[in-house]
Amino acid sequence: MKVKILDTTLRDGEQTPGVSLTPYEKLEIAKKIDELGVDIIEAGSAITSKGEREAIKMIVKENLNAEICSFVRALKVDIDAALECEVDSVHLVVPSSPIHIKYKLKKSEDEVLKTATDAVEYAKDHGLIVELSAEDATRAKEEFLIELFNRGKEAGADRCCICDTVGVLTPQKAERLFKNISEKVDLPIAVHCHNDFGMATANTCSAIFAGAVEAHVTVNGIGERAGNAALEEVVTALKFLYNIDTNVKLEKLYEVSRFVAKMMKLPVPFNKAIVGDNAFAHEAGIHVDGLIKNTETYEPIKPEMVGNRRRIILGKHSGRKALKYKLDLMNIEVSEEELNKIYEKIKELGDLGKYISDTDLLAIVREVKGSGIEEKIKLDELTVVSGNKITPIASVRLHYRGENRHLIETAYGVGPVDAAINAVRKAISGVADIKLEEYSVKSIGSGTDAIVEVKVKLRRGSEVVEVVKSDADIIKASVNAVMEGINLLLL
Amino acid sequence: MKVKILDTTLRDGEQTPGVSLTPYEKLEIAKKIDELGVDIIEAGSAITSKGEREAIKMIVKENLNAEICSFVRALKVDIDAALECEVDSVHLVVPSSPIHIKYKLKKSEDEVLKTATDAVEYAKDHGLIVELSAEDATRAKEEFLIELFNRGKEAGADRCCICDTVGVLTPQKAERLFKNISEKVDLPIAVHCHNDFGMATANTCSAIFAGAVEAHVTVNGIGERAGNAALEEVVTALKFLYNIDTNVKLEKLYEVSRFVAKMMKLPVPFNKAIVGDNAFAHEAGIHVDGLIKNTETYEPIKPEMVGNRRRIILGKHSGRKALKYKLDLMNIEVSEEELNKIYEKIKELGDLGKYISDTDLLAIVREVKGSGIEEKIKLDELTVVSGNKITPIASVRLHYRGENRHLIETAYGVGPVDAAINAVRKAISGVADIKLEEYSVKSIGSGTDAIVEVKVKLRRGSEVVEVVKSDADIIKASVNAVMEGINLLLL
Repeated sequence: MKVKILDTTLRDGEQTPGVSLTPYEKLEIAKKIDELGVDIIEAGSAITSKGEREAIKMIVKENLNAEICSFVRALKVDIDAALECEVDSVHLVVPSSPIHIKYKLKKSEDEVLKTATDAVEYAKDHGLIVELSAEDATRAKEEFLIELFNRGKEAGADRCCICDTVGVLTPQKAERLFKNISEKVDLPIAVHCHNDFGMATANTCSAIFAGAVEAHVTVNGIGERAGNAALEEVVTALKFLYNIDTNVKLEKLYEVSRFVAKMMKLPVPFNKAIVGDNAFAHEAGIHVDGLIKNTETYEPIKPEMVGNRRRIILGKHSGRKALKYKLDLMNIEVSEEELNKIYEKIKELGDLGKYISDTDLLAIVREVKGSGIEEKIKLDELTVVSGNKITPIASVRLHYRGENRHLIETAYGVGPVDAAINAVRKAISGVADIKLEEYSVKSIGSGTDAIVEVKVKLRRGSEVVEVVKSDADIIKASVNAVMEGINLLLL
Repeated sequence: MKVKILDTTLRDGEQTPGVSLTPYEKLEIAKKIDELGVDIIEAGSAITSKGEREAIKMIVKENLNAEICSFVRALKVDIDAALECEVDSVHLVVPSSPIHIKYKLKKSEDEVLKTATDAVEYAKDHGLIVELSAEDATRAKEEFLIELFNRGKEAGADRCCICDTVGVLTPQKAERLFKNISEKVDLPIAVHCHNDFGMATANTCSAIFAGAVEAHVTVNGIGERAGNAALEEVVTALKFLYNIDTNVKLEKLYEVSRFVAKMMKLPVPFNKAIVGDNAFAHEAGIHVDGLIKNTETYEPIKPEMVGNRRRIILGKHSGRKALKYKLDLMNIEVSEEELNKIYEKIKELGDLGKYISDTDLLAIVREVKGSGIEEKIKLDELTVVSGNKITPIASVRLHYRGENRHLIETAYGVGPVDAAINAVRKAISGVADIKLEEYSVKSIGSGTDAIVEVKVKLRRGSEVVEVVKSDADIIKASVNAVMEGINLLLL
């Protein structure tokens, strides 16, 4: 039997502090998550606002494959809001720990049980699928949870859920708790974990291992505080480490991860498991040597299985073999002696704290070979003018060495960087058709005089290069990165 | 008995693709990690390069409290390099899985055992503490591990280590494996986990739970691919969830996390457990209501315990009580009617996909109250000129409404943004002493015409404000953010 996946990217995920989506953005994310193959989409909390209800209604009308669910408290007003949106089901959440019952609700346990069963009955009477969820269940008394779920079942609940609201579960406690509850409650059990101690994925898998049949997750593990269990980690761990299937299409994970990151404006950490850009990146010489012999030596699964890719990166830990492997991939032939010289140079740069980019490597190759790769187009002059009341403009003069003539252009843009890059693009348009596919910037250090790092990805036909440049001047860093990329593509 | 912490930020952590440190930077990190209270510092791999040996020597000479260790393969040349650096101990790593032995080493199991014991003997003969480590042990045969460790013990090894090199361990397997090995091997056992499926922290804690007495970790969980077990997660989970102590000073975790992030130029993900800026941030109304009543409702531990802090953030999920709480903290008095109006306005903005910053909130308060907070200084004119052969310059004209006069200044800078901000700072220097404490920028979306987000932190005496502004023009976003911050501080 396959484990069910409830994706709560649009509810718990949207509760990430600072995140707010328009109804249209929520719909787009729902469609993407549905394509991924999740079983249930928790589309939001209908009571929250008018816009939230609009979003849920739009998602319901889309007739996706997944069951569409709204979060509700055990209140008639919340359930009515969900009914107005015509969702299939409700995730009906009831505080269950002494601390939540005493401080948040200020009620007795009996009152909580009564409110919960009334709400379940009301929702069932109105045709909803009901998942009765115990909030902060991992700090609750087990007897109370059993009582709550058994009464819920009598009232008609279809499923129940144990929430580790503040992330204090461990795999050991998860095994005991889910084994015990599943023996004493005759309902399918879901698990909902938070990542406050970095254990959400392991706790979710341990709960499934011990009897849970549904996992609550978010794309990229986003959510309040340290976030929720990450969809991509849970489904791949279940598949490859526990031999348990879900309906999720693993090969779409990377794509969906990036889509959600873009819509939510929350970047994916470089070393995020499964979907991070470093998740299958290798630098240290010993590791790359192993990979060349057999990728299984240092990769648990093939990156293509989750839609990601392998990256080979040179640095101070890289061995000669990794260097040769990388040069081969770049179609650069070197003699044994040249290889040794290039290798020594990289080691030196590594000790100086320098990261070896593809461009750096080409510069070293050029130096060692004493010729070969040339800077075909050189930046001669650049001037940029901008302000709050003028359209930013830029002029460039490039020296096209191949034909020993100058390319001069001016351009405007939405900002000074855009104007400068537009001018460069216009100037080289007669030489080659080069497209700027990606541009990103981040600051290193703090202060307006600190270094910023610019990364560009340029394409010429099927060839793509990536260049990273740092400078205290963002315009210079941007133009230098683009110029280096152009020269690489003109080789 | 306390569990020992081996910090490998300077070895596994430095193997993060793209990272390269100078010897001096490695020394600074070692000192910081030593202050934190770890027991063993794996300072690097002595054989790697001349610079690496220089760094390890500098760290050894510093006479830190921690034992200083070098990574070595089971090779005389590696051990000699470690001896040259005068380290206390070696982390002697031997491939142990069939895939590593067959494809990487191309040796027989007997040859591996012989090489390993010879190396242990050689290291012991030269006075080193030896931790004999089985690489890829979680894909090895258990009998082989037992044989390796027992022969290692006979040869004089002081400790042994089980490495989950490609992160395929689960808590369930960890419990079985460590229980079994600790019953059959009479050596202290360490655990070394990788995070390929997001389980490194839980696997490390499960191994300790089952008999391991030492954990290998890195600050912020950095390392090859998806990284290693995170120091901050392992020590806090052991303390608060397993009731197991270490020598690590928990209250220094946030500070050390940021120090390492800065030195390695690897930002800490916003939702990183324990040390992320969102780890104790709260938005959703229901959660903040609970927090106001008792912080334990939605926080597993107090943020101060790990050197972090609580953040309250307004957004579409925020309730009236959260809004009132936040306004109280900002010393803004509102009537019941005004509160309702402000609340409605925030809900509307939330549905439009907008994140509510402190400045946005003040603007809303101003609108609703119809007066009160005023823009004392307004940007009239800004002009910036820069290029590759000129010093970036900027001029500004500000309208100082308080005294109805204009403040005009020019300044240069290392780049156009720096020049613009310098001009603003010079212009207001006669009005108030305001300091720019932090400036950071990141791109949202991709392309030179995409939005960049600028965050500034300004201080006037003991008051600090943080403003976030987005614009396609980085100079405009920067200047607008600084202007808003100045106006907030002048209130």
